[in-house]
Amino acid sequence: MTTDGNHIKLEELFKKSNVKLGDSVMIETNNATHVGILIPRHEYADANHLVLKLKSGYNIGIKIGKIKSIKKITEKVDPNIKPDTNYKYKDYFSHENTDQNFSQSQLPNLSLLSTGGTISSKIDYRTGGVMAALTAKELNDSIPELARIANIDPEVVLSEYSENIKPEHWSLIARKVANNILSGKYDGIIVSHGTDTMHYTSAALSFALQNLPIPIVLVGAQRSSDRPSSDASLNLIGACTFATRSRFSGVFVAMHYSISDEVIACHIGTRVRKNHTSRRDAFHSIDVYPFSLIKKDHIEISRQYTDLKFQERNKNLESMVVRPNFESKVSLLKFYPGFDCRMIDYCVDLGHKAIILEGTGLGHINKECFSQIENAVNKGIIIFMTSQCIWGRTGLTVYDTGRDLLNLGVIPLSNMTSETALVKAMWCFGNFTEEKEVIKTMTSNIANEFTNRIIVD
Amino acid sequence: MTTDGNHIKLEELFKKSNVKLGDSVMIETNNATHVGILIPRHEYADANHLVLKLKSGYNIGIKIGKIKSIKKITEKVDPNIKPDTNYKYKDYFSHENTDQNFSQSQLPNLSLLSTGGTISSKIDYRTGGVMAALTAKELNDSIPELARIANIDPEVVLSEYSENIKPEHWSLIARKVANNILSGKYDGIIVSHGTDTMHYTSAALSFALQNLPIPIVLVGAQRSSDRPSSDASLNLIGACTFATRSRFSGVFVAMHYSISDEVIACHIGTRVRKNHTSRRDAFHSIDVYPFSLIKKDHIEISRQYTDLKFQERNKNLESMVVRPNFESKVSLLKFYPGFDCRMIDYCVDLGHKAIILEGTGLGHINKECFSQIENAVNKGIIIFMTSQCIWGRTGLTVYDTGRDLLNLGVIPLSNMTSETALVKAMWCFGNFTEEKEVIKTMTSNIANEFTNRIIVD
Repeated sequence: MTTDGNHIKLEELFKKSNVKLGDSVMIETNNATHVGILIPRHEYADANHLVLKLKSGYNIGIKIGKIKSIKKITEKVDPNIKPDTNYKYKDYFSHENTDQNFSQSQLPNLSLLSTGGTISSKIDYRTGGVMAALTAKELNDSIPELARIANIDPEVVLSEYSENIKPEHWSLIARKVANNILSGKYDGIIVSHGTDTMHYTSAALSFALQNLPIPIVLVGAQRSSDRPSSDASLNLIGACTFATRSRFSGVFVAMHYSISDEVIACHIGTRVRKNHTSRRDAFHSIDVYPFSLIKKDHIEISRQYTDLKFQERNKNLESMVVRPNFESKVSLLKFYPGFDCRMIDYCVDLGHKAIILEGTGLGHINKECFSQIENAVNKGIIIFMTSQCIWGRTGLTVYDTGRDLLNLGVIPLSNMTSETALVKAMWCFGNFTEEKEVIKTMTSNIANEFTNRIIVD
Repeated sequence: MTTDGNHIKLEELFKKSNVKLGDSVMIETNNATHVGILIPRHEYADANHLVLKLKSGYNIGIKIGKIKSIKKITEKVDPNIKPDTNYKYKDYFSHENTDQNFSQSQLPNLSLLSTGGTISSKIDYRTGGVMAALTAKELNDSIPELARIANIDPEVVLSEYSENIKPEHWSLIARKVANNILSGKYDGIIVSHGTDTMHYTSAALSFALQNLPIPIVLVGAQRSSDRPSSDASLNLIGACTFATRSRFSGVFVAMHYSISDEVIACHIGTRVRKNHTSRRDAFHSIDVYPFSLIKKDHIEISRQYTDLKFQERNKNLESMVVRPNFESKVSLLKFYPGFDCRMIDYCVDLGHKAIILEGTGLGHINKECFSQIENAVNKGIIIFMTSQCIWGRTGLTVYDTGRDLLNLGVIPLSNMTSETALVKAMWCFGNFTEEKEVIKTMTSNIANEFTNRIIVD
């Protein structure tokens, strides 16, 4: 916090009005009345404003000089919000019995690891753009609701926009998560992350950390947390609710389920994709329903989970598998009409160990590239096939050209997404040396990257 | 048709029963009764079976030796199916007044150009796979309903699975379509095409052929036309209905709107994508609603079209713009964590004129690649940015890293899809020599590849 005159003015104003951060208040200015919760400003924010979180979820800044009065409505937030039992999701979700009321002393413990991204960024008022700046602590302080869900230990692991995240960062994050799990102190781990590549990182953690005793929930925001329309608060609240109250472990991504500020979807780490550049509900589960939907304290779990590979929360720290290594020498090539087949040769020249071909339709590529594929396979490069369609699974036995690709040694990856396939191949080569073992692992279901049934909306 | 003994047996059976192809019949076998329409077999089909199209849309084969009797129910199909006026689409569609009843002599004329793909393929009974084999004529013969929509001139232009379609094929198809339009004989052009890259070809035709006097409708099938569950018939019927009765011209793609055999969606050629490997409703309009929905003779047009650039059907053949050239030396690179930035250098080495970078989120790429981008730009390569999110638009002014990319000379392409961006860049370099003209054209709206508002479900 700054210590200039304006800041002192705000403290005095609070003292005089007998209010504090977290209180619900009514503020009268010269020309309006606002009702909301007083929340902290970010470290570098304009010191002439206080920040009020409206009931709509939007934050507004009110110029201190314009304030005529502040009246307290209620002290802080009621810690016992009852789930709305009338709320019904589609019938493929069943209600989890999680209506526990924790007292402050019994609150579960969460580790909040910050890696950067919009969720921990702020507007640069000089340029109007967004810069990575906020720490996990500042974020935690800004959302007073979190304090009634869990005791949260924030830590900064990285401070990167997620387009700059690389496989070595996945290793770093995986090791940090594993250490915090092994400390035995936590009931869940939250990883705040930029949304651009959050689905790549969630896949990476799904392979690097197996047999998890507690849930790991990645969370991001599409609008920075000091913007009025920020989705950061609700996403974090949803992530923390799931991480403390779900009976399942595993790696998940928690983001808005719809554009309204009501329901958070918790997606399976290997089956999620960022499908919109800017909407708050940008993340979609691919070929499955979201694993869970969260509204306030109310958790619904997809009935589909019985088809999937999930284990319940447990105390077996020693059975956790930690394999945090990744090998970057894997390429993902998206095929298209006019694709220069020499791109395949170039990946061979670069010494890459595998190529994920993102083919068309059921997993096809122009027959003119067959000789380059053959050459790569002969040189020991493993070629996997996924589909740029995103939904559905590869099918190389349907058409004669697909069967030709199988004969060349191309390995189809069914309904694994291209992004998950890339990450899994990088993980396989980071942990296994035998080609046979890589192929066996790539085609086995490790973390729900394959699903038997395909269900889409 | 074959002339073996079995075939003669079938002709005799038809004669004896007083039925012909197209009639609705009831067939009794030793153990079942089937009701449906008699349809022709494909040239190479098993001669021991007749093919009956059931009301469900599925075709079944019935062994001739098992048939006890064939009774005619009605002669051919009733040519005057009335639209179901109770049928309501979502309220963003408005009904087109197209309930014309054409008599056979007044029927509109369509050109049906076959390029290959599943819609004109058949099952290889030796291997169980699907092979490109059927001609447009065979397809036309197989769907008797087409005869009451239009007089159809089938022609084979190509016979390629669409993963083998290249920019030079786009030129060939565009020239053929232009010639058939200029003949003045047709009210619409249907292009049957493999689904894998149909959205690339529809984008190509959208740029190559502008100010169209009549609609061009691309159509495909996800299941081959001699499979029981084939979507070929309904897609073609929908395409022909739109091509003859819509008052709009332009380039469209007609495919199933949902998995039920009821409604066909007609998508804008530059705003459509194959989003599922196998479902019949695999094609989705991106960021907009489908331009039109067709149920039987009933055509609904999206109210959104008023925001879009469409002209009505007209007689001005001479104002049509034909620019059928494409330059293949354009790459599409999908970025991902661990992406080897030297791939950009390699595209420069290959002499490519432009690179479409499919970035993450709003259009981002690891800052480690900035020097390769700078080098490419300095060598005169134009770098465009799209998003792998698919939905939404690029936004390079939101984050400081985005602004860095703008400073390097990267040109963002708003909500143009990556696939359309690739095709458009190939088209620009095929028709313009000046870099300035290419950039101006790439960032101008030619064929609804940009939309002002984004509307998605």
